[in-house]
Amino acid sequence: MTDSPLSTPASVSDPEGIPGPTSEVQSQAPLAFEDPTYLAAVVDLLGAIAYGEMSAFERLAEDAKMAPGLEDKAELAAMASREFGHFESLRDRLAELGADPYDAMQPFREPIDGFHVHTAPRDWLEGLVKAYVGDGLAADFYREIAAFVDADTRELIIDSLEDSGQAVFVVDRVRKAIDADPRVGGRLALWGRRLMGEALSQAQRVAAERDALSALLSGGVDRPGMDLAAIGRMFARLTENHAERMAALGLAS
Amino acid sequence: MTDSPLSTPASVSDPEGIPGPTSEVQSQAPLAFEDPTYLAAVVDLLGAIAYGEMSAFERLAEDAKMAPGLEDKAELAAMASREFGHFESLRDRLAELGADPYDAMQPFREPIDGFHVHTAPRDWLEGLVKAYVGDGLAADFYREIAAFVDADTRELIIDSLEDSGQAVFVVDRVRKAIDADPRVGGRLALWGRRLMGEALSQAQRVAAERDALSALLSGGVDRPGMDLAAIGRMFARLTENHAERMAALGLAS
Repeated sequence: MTDSPLSTPASVSDPEGIPGPTSEVQSQAPLAFEDPTYLAAVVDLLGAIAYGEMSAFERLAEDAKMAPGLEDKAELAAMASREFGHFESLRDRLAELGADPYDAMQPFREPIDGFHVHTAPRDWLEGLVKAYVGDGLAADFYREIAAFVDADTRELIIDSLEDSGQAVFVVDRVRKAIDADPRVGGRLALWGRRLMGEALSQAQRVAAERDALSALLSGGVDRPGMDLAAIGRMFARLTENHAERMAALGLAS
Repeated sequence: MTDSPLSTPASVSDPEGIPGPTSEVQSQAPLAFEDPTYLAAVVDLLGAIAYGEMSAFERLAEDAKMAPGLEDKAELAAMASREFGHFESLRDRLAELGADPYDAMQPFREPIDGFHVHTAPRDWLEGLVKAYVGDGLAADFYREIAAFVDADTRELIIDSLEDSGQAVFVVDRVRKAIDADPRVGGRLALWGRRLMGEALSQAQRVAAERDALSALLSGGVDRPGMDLAAIGRMFARLTENHAERMAALGLAS
């Protein structure tokens, strides 16, 4: 939508700059960042996603240990490395915004670690379902929030949430396992429901504790936000996408 | 030294090819690969390094859990991701050579896993020393062997063994820890000696079991090799480099 206004601050600080046809759009993000509440919300959002990516790295590297063979292990390690690459982009952006990336991540350690503690996979297949369903859910949620931020931040978020190769690999392995033993399907369907429940409970906790982030969703004087009906529709979309992912795995949701 | 002869097999299979000034050099590697013993040795060597990189990824990701803070954790995770990138290059090269990369890695699982089991760090600092000293030792050893292979394979090996950012970071952290508590230096010096001992004992095991790899070192009709005196000099170089790394950390070796 626009070039990075952060990397071209001259267009903001130089009053002699001749407004081009897109000057209004280009100035939106820097103006928004002058609002400390908005800046705090974006730092919160990027901090949450960055910590999520770092802990996705850790969890995938951990789950790789349960791989039945070296090739499957390499697939999970490759996903982990890609998640870490996303983390690095988010960390660099936080630093560009003048935030300490590690301070920004700190408030999200407890809820995100809590999610992982409550959803520690007991075996390889549970780990695969979690990599696909859990990350998909988180990605959908952050993408929804990204609709409320400036174009550059949104683009970075969407790039960070790109599928790290989970879909094809996980769908293949889980479907084969269910074919080999249909009872596996029942157990993994319950597991998918548990992942959804835990994710919602941690998300609510974050929303309750992080005022800036909640303020972003409810909007401001010059920014549109979500009313309760819109939040309801957002949850309907999240649930629907979750059900689609479960169906792709051959699981009831 | 030369373009990949593997990617230009026409120069070998096409008898009409006009020899250019470098044709002799260019034909060395493909000719060498026609020797099944040489090919087996290169597959063994790449398989060993590839498994080493994969297990370095796993171990660094595991040791990252002991990091005292998020920033240190991110440093170790970054090293892990780079090691995994090296693994991917080696795996792709094994496939190019017509080998199954995972079969090629298999014989090295036991000795490399054995090394890690016997040298599981008890804390963050032991993990750091292992990342620097252990990987440095392995890299030196593989670089020595790389002197006996064709230029392309050698280049790939040397690229794979490039320092994954360990040196500066580890030296800084370990020196600070010793400054804060000099007793740490004594404990870590013992740890460094143990790493060296375990590495040698696993390397001997590999040399005894992998005939093709040993044959590479001892040379062939048309390939120079190492006699016992040369092997002795190699061990002297390895020990000297190890002592230099220990000294860089502020540790007696």
